[in-house]
Amino acid sequence: MILTAIELAERLGGTLTGDGSVEVRALESLFAARPGDAAFFKDAKYAAQLAATKASVVLVSETWQGTCPAPAVIRVPDPDGAFARAAVWFAPSPPERAPGIHPTALIGRDVHLGASVHVGPYTVIEDGCVIGDGCVIEAQVFLGRQVSMGEGCHIYPQVTVREGCILGCRVVLHSGVRIGGDGYGYTPKVAADGTVTIDKIPQLGIVELGDDVEVGCNATIDRARFGRTRIGNSTKIDNLVQIGHNVQVGSCSGIIAQAGVAGSTRIGSGCLIWAQAGISGHLEIGDRGQVGPKSGLAKDVPAGEYVLGLPAIPRREFAASLLVPRQIEKLKRQLAEIQAELAALKS
Amino acid sequence: MILTAIELAERLGGTLTGDGSVEVRALESLFAARPGDAAFFKDAKYAAQLAATKASVVLVSETWQGTCPAPAVIRVPDPDGAFARAAVWFAPSPPERAPGIHPTALIGRDVHLGASVHVGPYTVIEDGCVIGDGCVIEAQVFLGRQVSMGEGCHIYPQVTVREGCILGCRVVLHSGVRIGGDGYGYTPKVAADGTVTIDKIPQLGIVELGDDVEVGCNATIDRARFGRTRIGNSTKIDNLVQIGHNVQVGSCSGIIAQAGVAGSTRIGSGCLIWAQAGISGHLEIGDRGQVGPKSGLAKDVPAGEYVLGLPAIPRREFAASLLVPRQIEKLKRQLAEIQAELAALKS
Amino acid sequence: MILTAIELAERLGGTLTGDGSVEVRALESLFAARPGDAAFFKDAKYAAQLAATKASVVLVSETWQGTCPAPAVIRVPDPDGAFARAAVWFAPSPPERAPGIHPTALIGRDVHLGASVHVGPYTVIEDGCVIGDGCVIEAQVFLGRQVSMGEGCHIYPQVTVREGCILGCRVVLHSGVRIGGDGYGYTPKVAADGTVTIDKIPQLGIVELGDDVEVGCNATIDRARFGRTRIGNSTKIDNLVQIGHNVQVGSCSGIIAQAGVAGSTRIGSGCLIWAQAGISGHLEIGDRGQVGPKSGLAKDVPAGEYVLGLPAIPRREFAASLLVPRQIEKLKRQLAEIQAELAALKS
Repeated sequence: MILTAIELAERLGGTLTGDGSVEVRALESLFAARPGDAAFFKDAKYAAQLAATKASVVLVSETWQGTCPAPAVIRVPDPDGAFARAAVWFAPSPPERAPGIHPTALIGRDVHLGASVHVGPYTVIEDGCVIGDGCVIEAQVFLGRQVSMGEGCHIYPQVTVREGCILGCRVVLHSGVRIGGDGYGYTPKVAADGTVTIDKIPQLGIVELGDDVEVGCNATIDRARFGRTRIGNSTKIDNLVQIGHNVQVGSCSGIIAQAGVAGSTRIGSGCLIWAQAGISGHLEIGDRGQVGPKSGLAKDVPAGEYVLGLPAIPRREFAASLLVPRQIEKLKRQLAEIQAELAALKS
Repeated sequence: MILTAIELAERLGGTLTGDGSVEVRALESLFAARPGDAAFFKDAKYAAQLAATKASVVLVSETWQGTCPAPAVIRVPDPDGAFARAAVWFAPSPPERAPGIHPTALIGRDVHLGASVHVGPYTVIEDGCVIGDGCVIEAQVFLGRQVSMGEGCHIYPQVTVREGCILGCRVVLHSGVRIGGDGYGYTPKVAADGTVTIDKIPQLGIVELGDDVEVGCNATIDRARFGRTRIGNSTKIDNLVQIGHNVQVGSCSGIIAQAGVAGSTRIGSGCLIWAQAGISGHLEIGDRGQVGPKSGLAKDVPAGEYVLGLPAIPRREFAASLLVPRQIEKLKRQLAEIQAELAALKS
Repeated sequence: MILTAIELAERLGGTLTGDGSVEVRALESLFAARPGDAAFFKDAKYAAQLAATKASVVLVSETWQGTCPAPAVIRVPDPDGAFARAAVWFAPSPPERAPGIHPTALIGRDVHLGASVHVGPYTVIEDGCVIGDGCVIEAQVFLGRQVSMGEGCHIYPQVTVREGCILGCRVVLHSGVRIGGDGYGYTPKVAADGTVTIDKIPQLGIVELGDDVEVGCNATIDRARFGRTRIGNSTKIDNLVQIGHNVQVGSCSGIIAQAGVAGSTRIGSGCLIWAQAGISGHLEIGDRGQVGPKSGLAKDVPAGEYVLGLPAIPRREFAASLLVPRQIEKLKRQLAEIQAELAALKS
């Protein structure tokens, strides 16, 4: 989409000043904008960015008084909201995923495909899968035997879901997601002669994702040793997250990028596991518990508590621990004073 | 597989009490079980979970006395072992990977395929590859030129192995594994006029995986600058692990999820690198050495030592460092006492 | 490539001593070499490795005096340089990616393919893509609608680039890279009756990679909420790195393996983000700033500063913090001395 400043002002119901013929091809922040971009200015703390912006058009409030290097300015009642509305117009055209099975898609025996399903090219759906109405399964996806999913799921290109795993309705899996891998489970055995062998523990369970679960690019969720690794309704998992076997996560929780959860840990509902956090196995995190970024959790978290650090401790304690160097300096000073007093007493 | 409680009791040689007609479709823990699941109870510390379980059937010991909300109970000599046996019956049917080359698989020139090899749909095997007897190469795999693997390997869907890499026998690569990528190797160059260019260092070596190596989903192992990045026999690498160029790992070691090992580091045999640990380049970890979870290793680890922390230090020292806040409190109290005594002396 | 020691000596213009008939198939370090490998010896600190090497041939300096277990030794003026030259001869044959479109590649409508483009098997290029001259797009790649790339790009197997994203010239994307995923952006909503729903924030922008950007295996770069997530010219991103939406990175910066950068953070030019570092959102890192390995960054970094730790602090402060246990021991000793003096004074 390309709009002139005039056209953009009309669509937004705003008032244009400056050169109405400049073209807008994309939206950007004041800082990152280049010629051809529109940006918005709302908060006085970005005045320096406004003064230096390379945007062709800036949306400002109706009461704004000032100068701006952009060739065109559009006054609107709510620059932030106008910007959000305009963002949709400039977004890349969403790909069309019309119902239909691409001729190169391979559909196994006894597969149930719901109404209005899209299956992209070079996708492989193995025997016995059940695909709900309106699902979009893009190109180059692999669904193992007897995978099932509810209606309205969206599986992006190059996802793999291994045999037997169950997805609820409206699940979104981004490219590179791996559902149902074996994970890490071995038993070392030392023979009488000292030879060590590493026996694999069979991983006989599945992964079950609730309704409205979304999983980010290249995240991995391991199948259960037995039973189910389970992610509750509306829980969102970010890119490159690792979920171990038999982990249970409640509903409406979030697990941010590159965090990892080891086997059999239970995470409640409304929890937030921040980026790059690591959670040991067999722990329990109560509802609305939070584990801070980069923290390493080695014990349970009560409901509603926010823990932080390595190992993770309650947030207040962590803040206190940051004062250690200052406390040591103070102790040194006090000691020196005491030593001086002692010397005075003795002399 | 669906079994009634009666059928399950018969198969296990156990004694049924309660409603023998309830159906079992899956196994689960007492805590996570839902109607249709069987669970087991062995350890008194899970009595509260037993009292609240939603399982349809619970396996208990022959001597168990108590009550249980499940409609059916089966008494067996060893509930834990019976559960493990039953797990196999309820596991999702393993996919069939019969010998044969799918008609859509693309096999290059001069490829040697051993006996009874399975090659799945849309897999690409480039010129000069050598595939041992009985290998299973699933759908959508990419094997670059002159990749070789011994007998009995299992390559899951959507794995890539780049040119020249060598896999031993019975190697398992899970979905999304990347063997033989270039990794990170550049030389910045500053010209006389201050212009910086970033030259790529050619990565001319390969990756060599020993027998019985297993690599988890989306893990990456970089090719050597020259020679070989080498993973020894029976070493197991978990999901999302990163192994840099020219790393050498011995046999029977384990590298847990999301850990990273930088270039040219040597890890011995029987070592354990815990989840999210990071290991700098050009280090040496002796046999049976361990690097704790989330630790950052910046120096060598002697054989048999367990190091922990950021930077990683021997486990005892790390434990001591956790006492710092308590030690500071004690120092403060002692100082206050001394100050009081001093004041008393002076008055 | 297999060369005898004689042939290798001739190619290098070196002087052979020992058994000229031994064959060399690969190059390795002295430590890792096995029979059939050539290694080099230059630095006296590796004398012990030389004495124990299993290499068939060792390259040494012309002035070297000593003994060596290898069956053949080749004297050259510059062993290091000779080794680097030989490395090219033994490297696995680079795959041929001749211009041409594989018959199984699917090319959408209105796709512009430049001159001499290679498109590998089972690759999907959707409508409206623009591919510059000389690009190599390997097997099983997915390019969404209206993706564009400049000349000379190299896209390895099993990469996905989602709709609308823009790549400069000579961009290299390694296997498993995910460009343009949605990332993590949600708004929790609590209804009057306490029901929580999690609304997805549309991600309407794109990813733009500058010229000469290289992205390692399984790394993920999220599309912008609006505008562009942008990586500057010659910036190099290592394996398994996560870049959040609207992140801006300057030119000639490096982001090492498994590091993560949260949304809207701005990283300057010539910066280095070390392995497994984590950077919070909405921060600014000045030119040539560095964030140390495994560090967790929670505030801005001035130009040229190196920060380290959890949370990250200037390098000198971090070094000081490592002395805390020693300082506490010293404080304890001093206190004990004072207590003894006090006791003496009172008695």
